[in-house]
Amino acid sequence: MSDEEMRKVSESTVARLSLYLRLLEEFDAAGRDTVSSADLARRAGTTSAQVRKDLSAFGTFGKRGLGYNVAELAAELRSILGLGRQWRVALVGAGKIGSALFGYQDFRRQGFFIRAVFDSDPRKVGQRWGDLVIRSDGELIPGLCEEDIDIVIVAVPAEAAQGVVDRVVEAGIRAILNFAPTQLRVPATVELKNVNMAMEMEGLSYALARESRRRRAVGGP
Amino acid sequence: MSDEEMRKVSESTVARLSLYLRLLEEFDAAGRDTVSSADLARRAGTTSAQVRKDLSAFGTFGKRGLGYNVAELAAELRSILGLGRQWRVALVGAGKIGSALFGYQDFRRQGFFIRAVFDSDPRKVGQRWGDLVIRSDGELIPGLCEEDIDIVIVAVPAEAAQGVVDRVVEAGIRAILNFAPTQLRVPATVELKNVNMAMEMEGLSYALARESRRRRAVGGP
Repeated sequence: MSDEEMRKVSESTVARLSLYLRLLEEFDAAGRDTVSSADLARRAGTTSAQVRKDLSAFGTFGKRGLGYNVAELAAELRSILGLGRQWRVALVGAGKIGSALFGYQDFRRQGFFIRAVFDSDPRKVGQRWGDLVIRSDGELIPGLCEEDIDIVIVAVPAEAAQGVVDRVVEAGIRAILNFAPTQLRVPATVELKNVNMAMEMEGLSYALARESRRRRAVGGP
Repeated sequence: MSDEEMRKVSESTVARLSLYLRLLEEFDAAGRDTVSSADLARRAGTTSAQVRKDLSAFGTFGKRGLGYNVAELAAELRSILGLGRQWRVALVGAGKIGSALFGYQDFRRQGFFIRAVFDSDPRKVGQRWGDLVIRSDGELIPGLCEEDIDIVIVAVPAEAAQGVVDRVVEAGIRAILNFAPTQLRVPATVELKNVNMAMEMEGLSYALARESRRRRAVGGP
């Protein structure tokens, strides 16, 4: 597929590919050799047509009437998702969230290896985390270059995040995962993903509050 | 607005309301009394028309030519998002992610208070976390009822998550935040949000891998 076609693959398609890969790994662990698009669709909460459309953007997989070979399709998806190699990751922010991410086993299983940790707190700088030593925030730009980092995880307070991200971009990083509860600005050439727990919680409280407004409105319990 | 209208408000609208609230808090902290829809739109990465449309679903705010009163609009958004009260939260899973969430200051600031922690590991059950004692997974259903829990956070391994969620739903909980990297099934009456760090990381590695495929294809560096 051309670059133009690859760019057109939407974020939601990529998220579904991740999900299909997880489901294939479950099917594989359960000893299944083949799956149909209907099997995948049912578990993924989507339609067979959507599964076929998502996969067709990347080539021809599976045989009509026979379905997909579980191990083969999983390998293809790993390659499409860039999981066939080791990515070098830096973590900025050695607080509670940063510490949990550092210990998050799934990252390593996926090929994401944290190679550097930075923090602005002088009491944290110099502490050992596993086989790494926490480095000063002031070393961020040279440190990212020296360690040949591919992906930066930002786990600093909201008010510090834009300043960190500006320097990360200046260091030439093209992929950022942000945990700070704020809207960050990056150039179009940089891929930015946000994990915003506070916002997800507000989605829940919105739903609960809407429900209780509704009950009051109809005079219910 | 009617129940039907409230239900039509999309998830992406609610996410933008959360973002507008954060921006209004920043404007407030910076001493600003009023903002225009254009100011909000610029910082939120959207259009003035979108800002006005999002807000109009909930009433009439602001004065033509004068913009919005920052403090008033923030108060309205807090009320719409259900942030005007304290929500009782339970955490299932006292591992690294659970521990980070337990210490996450922003949750309390928003009105989300963790009132119970459950784990299936007998070595963790009985440990003190702050003023709570970790309870056994076997006490989950009665525990959620006794503590009058509104929202459950699921931070258990993927393979355990559906079993936990089924019991959480059985206990009558209507709002769940899931951190397990798997697709969970809940009834339509239950609001489920997912925070999937592994999937976000795959979105980044996909983008980096696509970029390196493109470079190879054009014979670039």
